[in-house]
Amino acid sequence: MENVRVEWKALQEFATQVFEGLGMPPKDAAREAEVLIWANLRGVDSHGVQLIASYLKQVDAGVMNPKPRIQIIKETPATIFVEADRAFGPIVTTFTMEKVIEKAREVGIGWGLIRNTTHQGAMGYYSQMAAAQGMAGIAVVSSPPNMAPPGARAAGIHNSPISIAVPGKTRKFITLDMATSVVAWGKLLVAIDKGESIPKEWGLDKEGRPTTDPKQVAFLQPAGGYKGYGLAVMFECLSGLMAGNPLITAILLKQIQGSPVIQNSFVGAINIGNFTDIDEYKENVDKLVAAIKSLPRQEGVEEIFVPGEPEERVYEDRIKNGIPLPPGTIEKLRAAAERFQLKLPPGL
Amino acid sequence: MENVRVEWKALQEFATQVFEGLGMPPKDAAREAEVLIWANLRGVDSHGVQLIASYLKQVDAGVMNPKPRIQIIKETPATIFVEADRAFGPIVTTFTMEKVIEKAREVGIGWGLIRNTTHQGAMGYYSQMAAAQGMAGIAVVSSPPNMAPPGARAAGIHNSPISIAVPGKTRKFITLDMATSVVAWGKLLVAIDKGESIPKEWGLDKEGRPTTDPKQVAFLQPAGGYKGYGLAVMFECLSGLMAGNPLITAILLKQIQGSPVIQNSFVGAINIGNFTDIDEYKENVDKLVAAIKSLPRQEGVEEIFVPGEPEERVYEDRIKNGIPLPPGTIEKLRAAAERFQLKLPPGL
Repeated sequence: MENVRVEWKALQEFATQVFEGLGMPPKDAAREAEVLIWANLRGVDSHGVQLIASYLKQVDAGVMNPKPRIQIIKETPATIFVEADRAFGPIVTTFTMEKVIEKAREVGIGWGLIRNTTHQGAMGYYSQMAAAQGMAGIAVVSSPPNMAPPGARAAGIHNSPISIAVPGKTRKFITLDMATSVVAWGKLLVAIDKGESIPKEWGLDKEGRPTTDPKQVAFLQPAGGYKGYGLAVMFECLSGLMAGNPLITAILLKQIQGSPVIQNSFVGAINIGNFTDIDEYKENVDKLVAAIKSLPRQEGVEEIFVPGEPEERVYEDRIKNGIPLPPGTIEKLRAAAERFQLKLPPGL
Repeated sequence: MENVRVEWKALQEFATQVFEGLGMPPKDAAREAEVLIWANLRGVDSHGVQLIASYLKQVDAGVMNPKPRIQIIKETPATIFVEADRAFGPIVTTFTMEKVIEKAREVGIGWGLIRNTTHQGAMGYYSQMAAAQGMAGIAVVSSPPNMAPPGARAAGIHNSPISIAVPGKTRKFITLDMATSVVAWGKLLVAIDKGESIPKEWGLDKEGRPTTDPKQVAFLQPAGGYKGYGLAVMFECLSGLMAGNPLITAILLKQIQGSPVIQNSFVGAINIGNFTDIDEYKENVDKLVAAIKSLPRQEGVEEIFVPGEPEERVYEDRIKNGIPLPPGTIEKLRAAAERFQLKLPPGL
């Protein structure tokens, strides 16, 4: 069984129909689909359409809410605090980021705190929303624990991802989008599928020992040891605790059983034009990138990359040649098509 | 020659007199000394009084400015942009953080951008200023390049440190204060002094090869590879480029010779009370810390730490028993005492 390439627009249209089938308002369904395809187009397939199957389960279980009542709890000229009512992450996060961008346009910075959202997809989508408006964008999420603090043989904190994006001139964006663990879970699943062993730095078995067998990994290891762990702890302090919704603590103290998919998040936008000339800024981004890329290289190294560049390369291919879907993902889409009596995209 | 313990207040008073000797206003001299002693008390001796010698040199060279004309370039209800006029970092950074805290009190968040500062000491001092006011504090600096991007055999970016601090209840603060490199330069100097080899992950020699000889290290390696590097690139985009002062690019393109000590920085404060009850927040910080610390431990591990905890332990010792100064640092203080005809602190 081989991967099948599917045209991105057709895949996005299909995903939109699935979410409409769940009862989502058409605009929300289109947005949710767009965020998934955004990830697929950039090679982040763990955050693409393969998620549809788990989203359907979570709607059926009453966790993810396709018709949320999103509420603004508090608003100032610079901040907004939003109750997501277990919305699909992209719906409430784009809502909040749009407000935050407006605030940054007025007072130079906007900051949004989101309580009780569900899976948000790839955080880079949101930081780029701000960058597309001439701003620096930031987006962070804190979810149930899956990463072991240094010295622990248990999950103690989430491998909270952070994304930061800024605009360039010839290069549209520079986008960092990273988990605070050495690798994301998705990479373990890929290694399992391929029957490959993994570096011992990636994860720990249930006794807290480093393992090269991806199937034995019980907890992720933080990137840079205390550093990735430290960032993750502070991100929970800036999201879950800031929102008065300390999910990680509740899970660690077994006040909540299992690992619910509820999460807290924050997004920010800094208006570049508030501080410096935006065109000059974009040129300066290009120049910094060019200077870094022209550094002398280590033996055998062909190219030095800047944040987001590998994903852009994948984008250039997939936007033209379609998104390659593996058999497992195709099966998931087929099940969704049957459930909602939809036609699969051409090629599937 | 052994370390000599010196009472912190006497050492701080001495440092204050040195800075007054340079012509600094007394209030500024006291602040500069306080920031150095803050680091010494927490075991961060690389950022303590041993810096005095290099500060004197940089004042003599006309780089660090003991009598700066600090100017507010632009201000909004949420942001402030400050020209430091090559002030000693702590003078302009505390000035900016105080303004940022006021703004956060009014509109929920404050954000400050600082252009043309000089060495700022330990960034944790500034994030804790906000935390002491019931806020989350953040402080970041970007300086001349000293860290190699993955694949490069040259410095391409600064190992920009980031500090984030929040308040707890029984525990005053949780404070992350980390460089984006595996280790700071200071740890290399310690290894050289002790004649020890270092892990090959710390640095690269001038050919870009990992080395275990600290004397051969030409460039630092980023923590978590692409992750520490990516954060550092984005921090330059949020500080140097945002301030319209792209120092790293200028150095990489050899438009500036050498590595000037000028730097750009940003600080932020998020008012916790704007989002949730501050007392409940502090309790939740305590609970998260307790939950993490009580996780099952790996074999042979005695304790799981939270960010800033090792430094607090050192603080508890040094605030009582004095700050241990090695012979090299004592020599530097002696030279400063002679220059300004000052009496050394008791014990020296």
